Amino acid sequence: MEREFDRGYHRQRYRRLVSTFPDESVYPADSFRVEWGPVFHRGRLDGSARVLVIGQDPAAHEAISRRILVGEAGQRAQGLLARFGIDRSYVFINTFLYSVFGQGGGARHIDDAAITRYRNRWINAIVADQQIEAIISLGQLADTAYQSWRATSSGAANDAAYVTIHHPTYPESASRSAGVTKADAFKRLCTSWNVAVDTLHGVITPDTPVGLRHYGDSITPADLAAIPMRDLPPGMPDWMGSLDAWAVRSGETKQLKRATITVRVPTRARSWPVLPE
Amino acid sequence: MEREFDRGYHRQRYRRLVSTFPDESVYPADSFRVEWGPVFHRGRLDGSARVLVIGQDPAAHEAISRRILVGEAGQRAQGLLARFGIDRSYVFINTFLYSVFGQGGGARHIDDAAITRYRNRWINAIVADQQIEAIISLGQLADTAYQSWRATSSGAANDAAYVTIHHPTYPESASRSAGVTKADAFKRLCTSWNVAVDTLHGVITPDTPVGLRHYGDSITPADLAAIPMRDLPPGMPDWMGSLDAWAVRSGETKQLKRATITVRVPTRARSWPVLPE
Repeated sequence: MEREFDRGYHRQRYRRLVSTFPDESVYPADSFRVEWGPVFHRGRLDGSARVLVIGQDPAAHEAISRRILVGEAGQRAQGLLARFGIDRSYVFINTFLYSVFGQGGGARHIDDAAITRYRNRWINAIVADQQIEAIISLGQLADTAYQSWRATSSGAANDAAYVTIHHPTYPESASRSAGVTKADAFKRLCTSWNVAVDTLHGVITPDTPVGLRHYGDSITPADLAAIPMRDLPPGMPDWMGSLDAWAVRSGETKQLKRATITVRVPTRARSWPVLPE
Repeated sequence: MEREFDRGYHRQRYRRLVSTFPDESVYPADSFRVEWGPVFHRGRLDGSARVLVIGQDPAAHEAISRRILVGEAGQRAQGLLARFGIDRSYVFINTFLYSVFGQGGGARHIDDAAITRYRNRWINAIVADQQIEAIISLGQLADTAYQSWRATSSGAANDAAYVTIHHPTYPESASRSAGVTKADAFKRLCTSWNVAVDTLHGVITPDTPVGLRHYGDSITPADLAAIPMRDLPPGMPDWMGSLDAWAVRSGETKQLKRATITVRVPTRARSWPVLPE
């Protein structure tokens, strides 16, 4: 059987980017989980991407898979791309290379020049290298990231369609902090994502043509899409792309919780003979 | 700052190998931890390796770093290469792609034809592609792997020097199971590794010339060498190559322990402001 996998950063422009990433002198350790290393992208870097998605920051699944938007947020975003008939010709980057730590860490550093500069190098490399028809930003910080790039001469010269929508985990964060019920927050997310569907369906050349289909009032399991193995490094187990959660930060103290990620093979993927107690 | 990283399997011969790896129809799940995916190699695949080391099987650190011989065993082996002045021009592969599970799983499957065939494809790719001056096998199963390759026509035609030595974690396994004290087992390991030092010092062209130096009666911290970041995928945190342990299988039942790897940033690498309780 022939398996697809992500060939990584072997092309010169990306090789250069991943060998010169900003470290904790640029991303302060009180606001970013620099200890897990930068996570750069997910998707095509071979000239074939037609959609660029700008996410926010990597989390636990991403620290282990070394690709961004692999967990729940990624599966929701992957499902959005499916509504444009895009199952292959995309590339994701994030606003931040490292996971945001603590309240407001992202907002505090969204305008930092060195962070912006490095991110713009990535966007420039991608739009120079691929026929990007549309750019989608996920959440306010990602929108700011896009606008900072648009304010540069190469950003201003770009003519890709642009839509900014709620971040895929907006329902969870808004219902925790902004006095919105989760159901309401999901409704808002769907309204926001339906704008993207209306704006970009037909604008993005599909990999596989699909009819226009709106979200309902919430994101259901059928609205998620698994992460294709072609997006992950070679040899990664299939369950790392599946819809089951498999990574969690854990620890008895805050200090240990920051230091720890527990990776657990999902129940469905435990194909070995059951072990007795 | 320019950082080195492993560019992976982008060259055609290796790309082909990592996209056609044997799965659990070849590596049975009762004897191998197939659920963590195959881990293929560590080191040079660019034509510059002069030493090929054949290890046994990947463990917890390797399942996360996606490169073999990264944990304690790897640091001991890396220290051995340093005695030949080799700090760059090497490549490691393993006898098995997946971690051996349970007693005797490796011995039971060492002669399996499909496992041998795929491993020989790797060895053939490496010796065809690089000027390998010496091959070192770590432990009996790795020696058998080498001999199975030598029994093929391409193996027979190869003229690299060959040494087989005790596996780097022989002291731990022998003192657990074979009625040897740990101190004695370390002494045996050093005797075995000193044979390699005597046989191969001067035979392998060094990256940086070093004098011949024997091991003492045990492996001390000074005999270990860290895993260079150039051996790991891009963006991996530095502590994944350090001498501190950072991955462990954990779980309250055997079933959960097989399903779980806990990754914890070593104390020395917790560079963030200490978090209060």
